[in-house]
Amino acid sequence: MAEDQTPDSTPDEGGFELDRERLRPVQAALEAGDGPALAALLDPLHPADVADILEHLDRRSRVDLVRLYGLAFDGEILSELDESLREDVIAAMAPDALAEAVRDLESDDVVDLIEDLEEPQQEAILDALEAGDRVAVEKSLTYPEETAGRLMQREMVVAPEHWNVGQAIDFMRAHDDLPEQFYHVILVDPRMRPTGYVTLGRIMSHPRATRLSELSEDSFRTIPVLQDEEEVAYDFNHYHLISAPVVDEDDRLVGVITIDDAMAILDEEHEEDILRLAGVGEGSLLDGVFATTMRRVPWLVVNLGTAALAALVIAQFEDTIAALVVLAVLMPIVASMGGNAGTQSLTVAVRGLATRDLTSANAWRVIRREALVGVVNGLVLAVPLGLMTALIFGSFGIGGVIAAALIINLFVAALSGVMIPLLLEKFGVDPALASGVFVTTVTDVVGFFAFLGLAAVVLL
Amino acid sequence: MAEDQTPDSTPDEGGFELDRERLRPVQAALEAGDGPALAALLDPLHPADVADILEHLDRRSRVDLVRLYGLAFDGEILSELDESLREDVIAAMAPDALAEAVRDLESDDVVDLIEDLEEPQQEAILDALEAGDRVAVEKSLTYPEETAGRLMQREMVVAPEHWNVGQAIDFMRAHDDLPEQFYHVILVDPRMRPTGYVTLGRIMSHPRATRLSELSEDSFRTIPVLQDEEEVAYDFNHYHLISAPVVDEDDRLVGVITIDDAMAILDEEHEEDILRLAGVGEGSLLDGVFATTMRRVPWLVVNLGTAALAALVIAQFEDTIAALVVLAVLMPIVASMGGNAGTQSLTVAVRGLATRDLTSANAWRVIRREALVGVVNGLVLAVPLGLMTALIFGSFGIGGVIAAALIINLFVAALSGVMIPLLLEKFGVDPALASGVFVTTVTDVVGFFAFLGLAAVVLL
Repeated sequence: MAEDQTPDSTPDEGGFELDRERLRPVQAALEAGDGPALAALLDPLHPADVADILEHLDRRSRVDLVRLYGLAFDGEILSELDESLREDVIAAMAPDALAEAVRDLESDDVVDLIEDLEEPQQEAILDALEAGDRVAVEKSLTYPEETAGRLMQREMVVAPEHWNVGQAIDFMRAHDDLPEQFYHVILVDPRMRPTGYVTLGRIMSHPRATRLSELSEDSFRTIPVLQDEEEVAYDFNHYHLISAPVVDEDDRLVGVITIDDAMAILDEEHEEDILRLAGVGEGSLLDGVFATTMRRVPWLVVNLGTAALAALVIAQFEDTIAALVVLAVLMPIVASMGGNAGTQSLTVAVRGLATRDLTSANAWRVIRREALVGVVNGLVLAVPLGLMTALIFGSFGIGGVIAAALIINLFVAALSGVMIPLLLEKFGVDPALASGVFVTTVTDVVGFFAFLGLAAVVLL
Repeated sequence: MAEDQTPDSTPDEGGFELDRERLRPVQAALEAGDGPALAALLDPLHPADVADILEHLDRRSRVDLVRLYGLAFDGEILSELDESLREDVIAAMAPDALAEAVRDLESDDVVDLIEDLEEPQQEAILDALEAGDRVAVEKSLTYPEETAGRLMQREMVVAPEHWNVGQAIDFMRAHDDLPEQFYHVILVDPRMRPTGYVTLGRIMSHPRATRLSELSEDSFRTIPVLQDEEEVAYDFNHYHLISAPVVDEDDRLVGVITIDDAMAILDEEHEEDILRLAGVGEGSLLDGVFATTMRRVPWLVVNLGTAALAALVIAQFEDTIAALVVLAVLMPIVASMGGNAGTQSLTVAVRGLATRDLTSANAWRVIRREALVGVVNGLVLAVPLGLMTALIFGSFGIGGVIAAALIINLFVAALSGVMIPLLLEKFGVDPALASGVFVTTVTDVVGFFAFLGLAAVVLL
């Protein structure tokens, strides 16, 4: 990381928003092959913003930029880049530029960078690292993907638990190879097991004789190296951790995770949840048509099956519809309302499970509430729908049938909306992924069956 | 905050998960009115976990817990508590317990705590604060809600930009009233305008003569005090900030925001997006039936309108359906597939807008891709659907009609799924809130119209 001070060129705007105006000069510099102009545009930017620019360029311009920017290409740009583009960009980099770029990264960033790359590219990057860093990275790669072991960095500051403030300060002042970023001193016992951690701020504000263990944070907790990264992010958010020591099976310190990495994971998990709820697999706006289609079709195929099931239900009532065609006009209303109400319940339930606000300790209370909400919603909406229908078609019979079917379907929608995610979670299936299909199948089938069935009994 | 070291009782499990087993002893202590037993259960827990327990209890037990726990009730429990319960819990607290609880909170936490309370409760808390803290809190409350001014804390460490490492260390060592949590020293010019910031770690690892300005972080950027909190969270995530100085209109330093607060906002914004996409307003699992119904009914009413519109389309083809009842059986398939494909596109677009991956600089590229994906999905799914339909009903005509209608609807679904959120964003409407209604209305109307219209022309 450079040591010079480079305040952002537009600090007052509090952010850099990419639009066509910002992109145009970069494209012009690329077309002109003007290296100095490109550097003048990119050098003042944060690596995250350069990564944004790369993501917004077409493939050829992307390669041009990488080549023209050359040795000035910061390793952090690679870290910030969307995963789907990293391979392309790295392939476009000259070997010396790549080596230069990755050498300044911290070990956790290198791990994040190379874990999804193909073997030859992994090797190229590992070869560029200094021996010590290479060992650290290779060690991290031995832990399973999406665990704390992959997230942690090995650069940290450790002190024996019996030290006092003065000893800690003298130790740090005597070392000029401390990590670039650290906010805590981790206290360990003689077997390297963490027993607490102290913020640098607390060290600075206490007398030299104060024992470090007296200053340890209340929020101190360790993270098992094999813990799932989603749990890690949850803990950071829940307990407001800034950094946390990572321990192996024997409780010995092996690394440290900092909040910025946890924040990135939290963001990814949210993305995953929101996309899964919509039946869109992981992927990015940058993927091509083929990759996108391949991700979306499976869910549409499943939906084709459930729609066919709904059609099968309708088919049982062909005679009823033939006798009273208006039923075909009205039946999608009941199904559509059920689908929407079910989606409302299921989203609240899926979100509650993700934030752990919905647990076995309050599941029944939430189920009871949803069921009641379903009935109340049904009553509230059935009255105007029933009356309107009766008026328009001049039949209180048909108004009563659609009102009753709506109440039944909204009740079933609310109940299945909360119970299906709970059941899926219980059986270890991600509720965000699968709940939607089940719930809308239920509301379609029940909606058509209740409406047409009641009509067959009451009206014919 | 207590100064003693209280490691979590179950550090190896890396988290505290609330279930019925964990709740039972608490309920038992409450029923027995056993204060010491309750304290023994709650004292070792993190305030966030005590808040979880409160959220899982019924209303009466909640009040019992607050009264029985008395003066031991930590102010941070209030901060961690779901907003919908804070008023109840504060009302149940004895005045001296409340005063004791809020006195140790930092100014930003007090602001977060009281901004949604009613006047008398606000007053009670403000009265409990020391004069200096009260002024800080009241100052923050003068900024609009959901801005940086409400998020920032006023406790910070500032140094003149010309200082060197030695001066900064001596300054900090001479002051024992430094903030509880701080990670950076903010550099300011003579007019109190921030010009950089230095991590404590860098200060510790450099010689006394090094100028602080040489150690300033590359990522340095200031946040305008009126900036929207959503933008603040985006900046922290995008630029990996740990803390950032907040400035007024004259660029003068007024406070500092730390990453843990930004992470909480990021989490809230995600929650808002996911709930809005499902047509569920803000709210919590803890709300009652009435509040929940009031939040969900408006969206269902809107959906009733759009479903009526779809019914109106079908009504135009009553004669067609009467002549060929099987059309009523098949028509929901086309509409349902369109609804799902539209939801896929719109979720990707809404998410892309939230993460700023979708901007004016690449909107046309994304629109073209979605349109192509729509056509390809349509072709892929229309073939099996058309063949199956033709086989089952013994008519290639009907198979052809449903296949053609599906292709049309999936194309329209993909296009409207991405263009409607873009248009809403352009007109300043939150795309997460409103896109769903518009897109499913389009896919319903187009789905029924294409299928029944084609059938009327081709089959009759």
